[in-house]
Amino acid sequence: MKATFMFGAGDVRIENVPDPIIQHPTDAIVRVTRACICGSDLHPFNSMADDPAGVPMGHEFIGVVEEIGADVVTLSKGDFVIAPFAFQDNTCVFCAEGMHTSCVHGGFYASNGIGGGQAEAVRVPLADGSLVKVPGAVDDALYPSLLTLSDVYLTGFHAAHMGRVEPGKTVTVVGDGAVGLSAVLASRRLGAERIILMGRHSARTDLGLAFGATDVVAERGEEGVAKVMELTSGQGSHIVLEAVGHLPAYEQSVGIVRPGGVISRVGVPQYENAAIGFASLFGKNITLTGGPAPVRAYIDAALPEVLEGRIDPGRVFDRAVAIDSVPAGYRAMDAREALKVLVTF
Amino acid sequence: MKATFMFGAGDVRIENVPDPIIQHPTDAIVRVTRACICGSDLHPFNSMADDPAGVPMGHEFIGVVEEIGADVVTLSKGDFVIAPFAFQDNTCVFCAEGMHTSCVHGGFYASNGIGGGQAEAVRVPLADGSLVKVPGAVDDALYPSLLTLSDVYLTGFHAAHMGRVEPGKTVTVVGDGAVGLSAVLASRRLGAERIILMGRHSARTDLGLAFGATDVVAERGEEGVAKVMELTSGQGSHIVLEAVGHLPAYEQSVGIVRPGGVISRVGVPQYENAAIGFASLFGKNITLTGGPAPVRAYIDAALPEVLEGRIDPGRVFDRAVAIDSVPAGYRAMDAREALKVLVTF
Repeated sequence: MKATFMFGAGDVRIENVPDPIIQHPTDAIVRVTRACICGSDLHPFNSMADDPAGVPMGHEFIGVVEEIGADVVTLSKGDFVIAPFAFQDNTCVFCAEGMHTSCVHGGFYASNGIGGGQAEAVRVPLADGSLVKVPGAVDDALYPSLLTLSDVYLTGFHAAHMGRVEPGKTVTVVGDGAVGLSAVLASRRLGAERIILMGRHSARTDLGLAFGATDVVAERGEEGVAKVMELTSGQGSHIVLEAVGHLPAYEQSVGIVRPGGVISRVGVPQYENAAIGFASLFGKNITLTGGPAPVRAYIDAALPEVLEGRIDPGRVFDRAVAIDSVPAGYRAMDAREALKVLVTF
Repeated sequence: MKATFMFGAGDVRIENVPDPIIQHPTDAIVRVTRACICGSDLHPFNSMADDPAGVPMGHEFIGVVEEIGADVVTLSKGDFVIAPFAFQDNTCVFCAEGMHTSCVHGGFYASNGIGGGQAEAVRVPLADGSLVKVPGAVDDALYPSLLTLSDVYLTGFHAAHMGRVEPGKTVTVVGDGAVGLSAVLASRRLGAERIILMGRHSARTDLGLAFGATDVVAERGEEGVAKVMELTSGQGSHIVLEAVGHLPAYEQSVGIVRPGGVISRVGVPQYENAAIGFASLFGKNITLTGGPAPVRAYIDAALPEVLEGRIDPGRVFDRAVAIDSVPAGYRAMDAREALKVLVTF
């Protein structure tokens, strides 16, 4: 089968590798229908050290169950499924608490002998806990939105959920990438009164407005902070959803959050240390939250929203490439020519 | 009147200064009945640069209203009052949101021309919003517990409240100072199932056990982390209340918090930068919260608890000194000979 590997910064290739096979009785093999490229894939695309062995890529996919292990009980061959970007047993103590990305038996694709999702087929560990069946006949017009339940929309939702977005609140979203726009849509669904989107790319912020943003701030850094403070009568935003991951985005978030407010991060931090003392978080009683989204915790509630057309998060895909053109897809996303790239097979 | 000033590290003196007078029509003058020394006073006691002018000290006091400004409407001369450690108008947008320590007109004692609380009398700005009248005749046996509503007990309560302590949760309190012990008591009141107190001073941890701690861990650093992990079946604590303020206490908190858990800080951070990236907070979806306690938000609910004897937070005072002996009180607290020192007049 064809699968995507990265060999170093900027070096993505499609390789022919053996099809995955069942290795554990709890595994399933999924034939991938649609996959995509994640903003987080761009971090290694910009910085990865050369690795002649290559690293498998991708962690977002939907597809059809091709084979199941002997212990898999909730799935059958032919089921159309969504694969959350992390796998989990969905039964451990942390899964029971809704923290599936900390599952004691779980893990991530493209590591520890498990392939990546930008491939024609994937071995899914702990299939009963990991795969979510889409009921009935699946309209292929829904593929993009169903695919966003694998990661991007529910990562945006996680930001809003952890930030405790609710009616009456002012929310500022830092970042106009696909996760940021998803956070706008999720904030709208959760009833935010005002949603300020910080982003500079009008094609993206226009989609943000369509998703429910009420204001767009193109400025960044100190100017961006000043603009948001002006928009909020000098008080700041109750909730800031940080969907970038770079330190300046965190610092911008600290600058615009209101006393007693929340900064919820879902952009994977590209830093370890940052300011959290009296002058930044403590003095104003700011809450900092967020992390890798436990999408399995949210998917059951979000699936009907997509199937019944109440949300259309698949609009974040503005380009589609066949598997052979995935390297071009990386380049387009990295150059910001594409917002988010869908992979077809 | 006599008032406490600090002139440099280790140099606390009682000075004779003019009695405070009404300066604004919203002021009140309070004749202090009891004051105390705060753990946060020990930070400058250890590190303050010499200042020949001296800095007024103290921010926790109860007393009797001696005089009110022309615009004060809710208080009368002779009222027995509790003074929250910050003053506030109790009407601004942030006060309305329960974030009184961010009041747009508020501030702190012992700065900007306002005296400290370790003094015979204090000018209280914004008296209507700041002072809470204790109804009826006040039994002097209740003075210590009433005084804790000025800061220490409600700072511990704030930690527990922001940490979302509730029935069924395991809470670990880092630090056996008066705030840590108060956090134990507050966690018990909020129904925590298990309360692990990390502290090395048996006289203090014994009071922690009396306040409701279920376990005491004397080890610190990596050994302390290992011990808490062992006590929690390797899962960690749902909620960690950090009542120290030094970086190792924060790092210890990160080590023992459960995935999806909360670290709530009320020890004033003696650092600005710390680890918050993937390896510390983000990867495990840890929430970091806390800050200066808006005690005015909690005092109305806590006052009946004290007056009716349901809680006795005043047990944190293990020494009393007259105003002239306040310098000795600082030395005793700094040497850990005293847990918390009450000041009488």
